[in-house]
Amino acid sequence: MKRNIIVEHSMTKPIEKQKIELVERKGIGHPDSIADGIAESISQSLCKYYKEEFGFVLHHNTDETQIVAGKSSPCYGGGKIIKPIYILLVGRATKQYNGIEIPTDMIAINSAREYLNKNIENLNSNVIIDCKFGGGSSDLTNIFMNTNPKTYIALSNDTSFGVGHAPFSELENIVYNTERYMINTLKKKNKMKFIGEDIKVMGFRNDNNINLTICSGFIDKYIDDIDCYINCKEEIIDHIYDYVNNQTSRNINIQMNTADNIKKESIYLTVTGTSAEMGDDGSVGRGNRCNGLITPNRPMSMEATSGKNPINHVGKIYNLLSTKIANKIIKEIDLIDEVYIKLLSNIGKSIDQPLIANAQVILKENYCFNNINDEISSIINNELENIYDFTNQICDGKYTTF
Amino acid sequence: MKRNIIVEHSMTKPIEKQKIELVERKGIGHPDSIADGIAESISQSLCKYYKEEFGFVLHHNTDETQIVAGKSSPCYGGGKIIKPIYILLVGRATKQYNGIEIPTDMIAINSAREYLNKNIENLNSNVIIDCKFGGGSSDLTNIFMNTNPKTYIALSNDTSFGVGHAPFSELENIVYNTERYMINTLKKKNKMKFIGEDIKVMGFRNDNNINLTICSGFIDKYIDDIDCYINCKEEIIDHIYDYVNNQTSRNINIQMNTADNIKKESIYLTVTGTSAEMGDDGSVGRGNRCNGLITPNRPMSMEATSGKNPINHVGKIYNLLSTKIANKIIKEIDLIDEVYIKLLSNIGKSIDQPLIANAQVILKENYCFNNINDEISSIINNELENIYDFTNQICDGKYTTF
Amino acid sequence: MKRNIIVEHSMTKPIEKQKIELVERKGIGHPDSIADGIAESISQSLCKYYKEEFGFVLHHNTDETQIVAGKSSPCYGGGKIIKPIYILLVGRATKQYNGIEIPTDMIAINSAREYLNKNIENLNSNVIIDCKFGGGSSDLTNIFMNTNPKTYIALSNDTSFGVGHAPFSELENIVYNTERYMINTLKKKNKMKFIGEDIKVMGFRNDNNINLTICSGFIDKYIDDIDCYINCKEEIIDHIYDYVNNQTSRNINIQMNTADNIKKESIYLTVTGTSAEMGDDGSVGRGNRCNGLITPNRPMSMEATSGKNPINHVGKIYNLLSTKIANKIIKEIDLIDEVYIKLLSNIGKSIDQPLIANAQVILKENYCFNNINDEISSIINNELENIYDFTNQICDGKYTTF
Amino acid sequence: MKRNIIVEHSMTKPIEKQKIELVERKGIGHPDSIADGIAESISQSLCKYYKEEFGFVLHHNTDETQIVAGKSSPCYGGGKIIKPIYILLVGRATKQYNGIEIPTDMIAINSAREYLNKNIENLNSNVIIDCKFGGGSSDLTNIFMNTNPKTYIALSNDTSFGVGHAPFSELENIVYNTERYMINTLKKKNKMKFIGEDIKVMGFRNDNNINLTICSGFIDKYIDDIDCYINCKEEIIDHIYDYVNNQTSRNINIQMNTADNIKKESIYLTVTGTSAEMGDDGSVGRGNRCNGLITPNRPMSMEATSGKNPINHVGKIYNLLSTKIANKIIKEIDLIDEVYIKLLSNIGKSIDQPLIANAQVILKENYCFNNINDEISSIINNELENIYDFTNQICDGKYTTF
Repeated sequence: MKRNIIVEHSMTKPIEKQKIELVERKGIGHPDSIADGIAESISQSLCKYYKEEFGFVLHHNTDETQIVAGKSSPCYGGGKIIKPIYILLVGRATKQYNGIEIPTDMIAINSAREYLNKNIENLNSNVIIDCKFGGGSSDLTNIFMNTNPKTYIALSNDTSFGVGHAPFSELENIVYNTERYMINTLKKKNKMKFIGEDIKVMGFRNDNNINLTICSGFIDKYIDDIDCYINCKEEIIDHIYDYVNNQTSRNINIQMNTADNIKKESIYLTVTGTSAEMGDDGSVGRGNRCNGLITPNRPMSMEATSGKNPINHVGKIYNLLSTKIANKIIKEIDLIDEVYIKLLSNIGKSIDQPLIANAQVILKENYCFNNINDEISSIINNELENIYDFTNQICDGKYTTF
Repeated sequence: MKRNIIVEHSMTKPIEKQKIELVERKGIGHPDSIADGIAESISQSLCKYYKEEFGFVLHHNTDETQIVAGKSSPCYGGGKIIKPIYILLVGRATKQYNGIEIPTDMIAINSAREYLNKNIENLNSNVIIDCKFGGGSSDLTNIFMNTNPKTYIALSNDTSFGVGHAPFSELENIVYNTERYMINTLKKKNKMKFIGEDIKVMGFRNDNNINLTICSGFIDKYIDDIDCYINCKEEIIDHIYDYVNNQTSRNINIQMNTADNIKKESIYLTVTGTSAEMGDDGSVGRGNRCNGLITPNRPMSMEATSGKNPINHVGKIYNLLSTKIANKIIKEIDLIDEVYIKLLSNIGKSIDQPLIANAQVILKENYCFNNINDEISSIINNELENIYDFTNQICDGKYTTF
Repeated sequence: MKRNIIVEHSMTKPIEKQKIELVERKGIGHPDSIADGIAESISQSLCKYYKEEFGFVLHHNTDETQIVAGKSSPCYGGGKIIKPIYILLVGRATKQYNGIEIPTDMIAINSAREYLNKNIENLNSNVIIDCKFGGGSSDLTNIFMNTNPKTYIALSNDTSFGVGHAPFSELENIVYNTERYMINTLKKKNKMKFIGEDIKVMGFRNDNNINLTICSGFIDKYIDDIDCYINCKEEIIDHIYDYVNNQTSRNINIQMNTADNIKKESIYLTVTGTSAEMGDDGSVGRGNRCNGLITPNRPMSMEATSGKNPINHVGKIYNLLSTKIANKIIKEIDLIDEVYIKLLSNIGKSIDQPLIANAQVILKENYCFNNINDEISSIINNELENIYDFTNQICDGKYTTF
Repeated sequence: MKRNIIVEHSMTKPIEKQKIELVERKGIGHPDSIADGIAESISQSLCKYYKEEFGFVLHHNTDETQIVAGKSSPCYGGGKIIKPIYILLVGRATKQYNGIEIPTDMIAINSAREYLNKNIENLNSNVIIDCKFGGGSSDLTNIFMNTNPKTYIALSNDTSFGVGHAPFSELENIVYNTERYMINTLKKKNKMKFIGEDIKVMGFRNDNNINLTICSGFIDKYIDDIDCYINCKEEIIDHIYDYVNNQTSRNINIQMNTADNIKKESIYLTVTGTSAEMGDDGSVGRGNRCNGLITPNRPMSMEATSGKNPINHVGKIYNLLSTKIANKIIKEIDLIDEVYIKLLSNIGKSIDQPLIANAQVILKENYCFNNINDEISSIINNELENIYDFTNQICDGKYTTF
């Protein structure tokens, strides 16, 4: 069946020409990101288990993890956790199939534990992981098992939409990369072990002036005193400045932990590296979109991507696919400045047949729109054609969701 | 201090001229909206208590309620709840002030109960309300009590932004009003008691064709059999058609409960009127933005508005204020087609002094931009000047947040 | 089949001749008794539901309710609850039978709520009732459904024993009646509304001197100041003295709330009438035995009686039945001073066929044992013969369990 | 101050001469024992922490752990846990002292985890440990800090009593030792790894016939098939028979897992070695008394010993001390057949000054009571005199409590 693909020319000012731009990234240790990360890891673990046991994925949606902050008493040289972080795993997963019971709760809990151990270095055992998993309504389970009989492609679970754009603006790249650089290079390679995983980077561009406001909880056992803290902060800012300066010709201003009051030694110390240890709750779908950023200058979807099942939940699949399509268009077609993809699902219809697939394109100056219309349509069509492989790759964790 | 207000002319195509438009509203009985509603009701109750007890509002953020779906067995004439809905109230609130203990947990629980009793008619006692409220970090509490000494206006708690737009597009109005009409007119006035509060309206406009896909759980005790269900559904669609038809000259197509399989009598029945009774979890900030809609064609903020404190949490205040400002501009200045407001906070600075207040304006054809620049600036400036009164009105529940 | 009944003559000194005697009763508002009361009310509600729905009782054991104390701030004239009491209902109950789902969690929660409303006058809504009910292992469910095919009497679920004695000693009567008198007469009839339901009566007899140490939380809204408290305490002690004095010729000494420090106004005030509001947790089976008392001078069973199923759980049935048999023997046979009954179950065998039914009898002076041996055997045999009716009466709440 | 010590001659038939005797022991893996073990380990950990941090123990009572059974699917060669065991740690502990916050929740959780790892070999991570610890009422905390100013001995927290007896009867020794032998010798030394820690030994003596009914969950990964199960069971029974036969000249009959239905292969297999994995909940104080046994032929206290603070909670101290005193009397004085000790506390008075300390003594035949009265009094007096050291030894875990 021919797909309903609409390609439009957008007159919107390209992002780099807009005067004001805001971009935010919550690092992997931010409470909202922890919720996202756990939710997605559980979905992947369930997919793996279902596939190994039954050959295919069964119905689940695990996109509701709730992080309840603990209480800590950080201090120079190493403080202590007073009250653990409480994590409630919430979601639905098929608990029985063909008479076989599926240990969904244990899969969820073990997956969450492993995720935390792997990603939040100093969290250790300071966490309670509780679980309230339902079995899902039988109606949804039925829909789930329905596939297009010819293509084995699932039927859309909902009326929903996904959006994606490409390429990243300069500021988007800077914000995204800064957080990654702090963890992957400064913390892991350069042994600046005091950097906690809870980093928030807020980028604000006013014309050609870029302000990065970084919030980064330091880990107390590596900080001996206030001087040490000041030095560490300066050192890290210097590194980031150099790193960012290589990526832009705009003016850069970097601030870190602006709520610090150095005189009163009221600074941002943590025991574990995440503010969830003290006062910051978190939940799924409240932070980064699936491209890793929060971008109010761009169209965004409210749908949480993390934890949803990658088989028929268009709230997940279409967000990831829109982003993938946008990137592919930018990669393959030179003439385009920016592209926005929207996929609107048709509930109960094959997910490769969206109600509408829409591309809004901003051309580089002087180029003509019509020439590339077909090329874009063809890319979109092709990606939808191969959506089955794409969903399998999501199952296997090939795409990040936050 | 002069405020940093920037007014820009936007070249973006006005929404009504865009080919494709998506708008969604989750009704008050949707699990995400229930979470929003409870979260906001708790914040309002805390504000009230703090004010009565101490004369001013103390630090709190209650924006993390988690709804864990129950299990039900609906049937014609009235079924039963097998397992209650579990609601975990999560948040922070000052628990002690001047040696006086504040019953934050009881305030939260009672507020949640009252909210549910008032808003979800048939939920009754089929719900467990649990509470894990922390006391908040002392740092934040300190910041919270800081105010600009001259104006008594609080200092911004975070680097964050709010966005708002006006006016609503035709589709936005239709989607919003349809849900309200179903509850306020059909259910309450017309005594169509079978309508549950869990309504989801998805509006999709393709040029001049409007599709409304409505998901509405019926309450089983008012539905005798499959024929009754079919009749009720037809009746309600007819009413909505007439109602919407009066608001637009575009073509209208309305679908309801598209997942129904009438032959198998697999239909959308509930015991309580909300899908939270069976399989649908919910959390704060995952649904409607503070204007009551999800609008992927418009800039949106990821910040949950419901439950945040209305004193210094710019994630709440700036979203509500942007929307208010946009509406005021549209009301007072004739020449404008659309206006988008963005407010970016300056952490630690007075909330009436955003880092930037930005208006993007789409003029009606043939009008000149410069004439109105000052008018807009003046409106923005005036609203920021009076932000203290505005925050008080939020405390008093004068603004809806979802 | 002949029953294995052994009647023995005991040489133990009758209780009234023992020099020292200890007896304790925890009133219905004591946290352990609240747990017992809820547990038993749930079992009765399940019995009722199962009987109405299926004609017979299905497997359940609900004997594990956990009360987690709240936090309160009592004060003269009426204080407040800071943090609610948290009650976790724990147990097993058959959740599905013949394809019909049974709302065990809702039955449990509603039953607990009703019980509290009925029995703890001022508790109101200051309580969270959570529920973690399992379905029970299928093995046990199978055993449960087994009955002796001739008699329809269930097979014993366990190797266990029950004990009972009669008659109550003078002190046992006094301790039991004092608590009942405080609630039924002083609080309810005499309108001494300040008496909370959480009463603990500790009776200690040293020869002919009886000490009653009573712990009784007063309800703060009825107590205006320290003088009022002192007066109330004196008044209540006077009433109790008169009441007890009529029942004994021994010397009586009554103390109440001995931890009070009147000078510091550190007294036993509560908001709700139970210490569970502040600091005292409770659980099933930790307080009174099924005769309403704790009697270290008497043989006691560790088995919790409250909440166990009355069909095959000998830990419940045999405790209640031993007590009933003991009372019947005392009532029908004049010559006996005291009788102790022990019933030891035979797992997997009909509950009317205990492995052993043992009576230890202390005769009144000068009477001869042999004469009454057969009479006693016959009573025991008869009660076992009619155990089916007895278990039905337990279902219907005809026996108190704590 | 002279202590109130009363020594009495008891005419009760010595236990070995009684016709019927019942003794039960719940092994360390029984759900009630798990609760006891965790509760006591937490108290010991808190004592250690308080002592290290402040030099003395602060108020706490951690005697309310609730075990909620999980769900498992055992099978030959190794099954799986479907739903984890949920453990709710409940109790009170001082959370702040001299401005220093005490991580009571983390101490409790870590202590519980360590206890389980050490004592239930195959439980691994199949458990959720949640924690709801209160801070205790300030009144109690005050009483707690009160000590007799001359002796530094704490004041009794309550009106309560403890009981103890010595020596163990033959059956008591057999029941106690059988469980220990199964774990320490058969499981650990003889490598019969299939033996789970959840063992229940019920001993029933009818004159000279001893019946041991043993309930012992085997660990499925060590059991290949039904034949293997039968062989293991026979082997273990043979070992126990030999072991017990050496300790008695009475007739012995041993039964194991009497609910097994070999034909239907309905047998007692577990994944983890405890029935808490499937259907058996547990709580503190419902199982063994502090001497490790349940002995309905003996006076028993209802007070849970495990988890109570060893400083002023007479419900713990007096049970342990009564037992210690009884053992000492038997060891030091030849002429005594049996001795029962009761200690009744005097609330608010020094714990070394019980309201009454009572010994009931059964002499060996032909001995005269008066001769030994003073010896016994002197032992009791001496033990009370040294109660401070005794409580310190409890802190250090020198006494088992279940």
